[in-house]
Amino acid sequence: MGFEIKAKIANFGGQLLKLEHQSTSTKTKMALNLFLPPTSISQPSHKTPILIFLSGLTCTGDNCAEKGFLQPHAARHGIAIVYPDTSPRGAKIDGEDDNWDFGSGAGFYVDATTEGWRNNYNMYTYINEELPSELFKQFEVLDSGRVGIAGHSMGGHGALTIFLKNPGKYLSVSAFAPISNPINCPWGQKAFGGYFGEENKEKWAQHDATELVKAWEEDRPLEVLIDVGTADNFYKQGQLLPENFKMAAGDKGIQVRYQEGYDHSYFFISSFAGDHVDFHAKHLCNRALR
Amino acid sequence: MGFEIKAKIANFGGQLLKLEHQSTSTKTKMALNLFLPPTSISQPSHKTPILIFLSGLTCTGDNCAEKGFLQPHAARHGIAIVYPDTSPRGAKIDGEDDNWDFGSGAGFYVDATTEGWRNNYNMYTYINEELPSELFKQFEVLDSGRVGIAGHSMGGHGALTIFLKNPGKYLSVSAFAPISNPINCPWGQKAFGGYFGEENKEKWAQHDATELVKAWEEDRPLEVLIDVGTADNFYKQGQLLPENFKMAAGDKGIQVRYQEGYDHSYFFISSFAGDHVDFHAKHLCNRALR
Repeated sequence: MGFEIKAKIANFGGQLLKLEHQSTSTKTKMALNLFLPPTSISQPSHKTPILIFLSGLTCTGDNCAEKGFLQPHAARHGIAIVYPDTSPRGAKIDGEDDNWDFGSGAGFYVDATTEGWRNNYNMYTYINEELPSELFKQFEVLDSGRVGIAGHSMGGHGALTIFLKNPGKYLSVSAFAPISNPINCPWGQKAFGGYFGEENKEKWAQHDATELVKAWEEDRPLEVLIDVGTADNFYKQGQLLPENFKMAAGDKGIQVRYQEGYDHSYFFISSFAGDHVDFHAKHLCNRALR
Repeated sequence: MGFEIKAKIANFGGQLLKLEHQSTSTKTKMALNLFLPPTSISQPSHKTPILIFLSGLTCTGDNCAEKGFLQPHAARHGIAIVYPDTSPRGAKIDGEDDNWDFGSGAGFYVDATTEGWRNNYNMYTYINEELPSELFKQFEVLDSGRVGIAGHSMGGHGALTIFLKNPGKYLSVSAFAPISNPINCPWGQKAFGGYFGEENKEKWAQHDATELVKAWEEDRPLEVLIDVGTADNFYKQGQLLPENFKMAAGDKGIQVRYQEGYDHSYFFISSFAGDHVDFHAKHLCNRALR
């Protein structure tokens, strides 16, 4: 359903809109942030490409909008950014708020199939269908034909899998410290076990970037930018496994950059935000010149 | 006393150090953040100028380090930034934590004279003497001869007054939405009444930027950059009064920019962080070329 605009905040010559709407996918009220670059306001007839930024465990759509430093670069390129929440909130499911890596703040961008969760935990459909559809309906300045997707950690997993599952739908994808092979890491195993059931391994594979990239058609272009910090404790603990993704991709155009000394925090994201937005702009903005 | 380095976080090619030390001015443990630009690490023999950034009511030294986006610009210019806390914490003073605009998080960068507060609430001496002195002692890469000062809201008041009270000590000053005439606004009257007493109006004037700028020697150069958002509710409520400061300064070089539609938040600070760091760089970095 339509978005209620809770606040309009001037930012980098554009506006950050604080939005709320009732989601049909999650059956809960969902909050999000939408950054509109200066050109969306000064030239509303000029269609604006949009980047979907998916956040990581425990986050809402606020963290990256406040700390990620993507907006100045999006303002420069004339790109909008939407920062959705990472799960339904207040779904009144037993145990929903008991874990920081499962349930609230940890929707993992899948549609759950298990009892208890499947009624609300449909973040895949929410991000891939409902959210963009509602945005394009209400904000006519946004260009439904030029959408990129990015994310951090669990959100990097979301960005990679949603991109790979929908060839041609998203023009660009990048990730900061993504969970790249969830079926082989503790975070992913806990989440997929809970949302899909322990036995449903076929379903697990359908939401694993490393499995999905193997099936990507050889002749279809694939360019992915990934940054991972070498001082990232979750990387060191084997939660991210970007090597597996890179190896599975073979000759395809996966660029994994290991950033010396960087950790898993927003200090890492903000440091490379410019590179990522520039990367998306190459795909999202050049298209406009055709 | 010396700083304990609690964490070193890679950021924009430099490092954000999370520091803690026992302060002799406040008689409490004080936490702070110190950003060192890439050149401080790659060329430790090359002295680095430093900007002191004073935060506003309710903040610690973390908020602006995470949300202010001064670091990328400081990295570009080779400037360090220190983000101190805004008051002593845990001083065990009666009523210390009862108000968001007095006591904890609201030290107002003065040395209190009133019973109860004067033992710990010595943020003027802490910022103007103890903190830089300790930093220059421990971090030899920092250049004690090239120090700038800036701040937001209450911190803008701190930056302006500390600059004006110490001619020649700081090479540059700028402020975001500063409390510019505290003796004539509710925040300032509450704070000065509490820290100096209601009767001590002479002391009040000694920490009022508008009063201080009147006394600035005509032939001494004065260049100040101030940004204020026109949608800033505190500005509209008369808490900031930059007009009074500008008028009191007369022909002196005060640049007050009213930024259309911007509020009082870090979304405002981050949007103009580049301009402010550039302004400080003009004063702090050119000096190195002489």
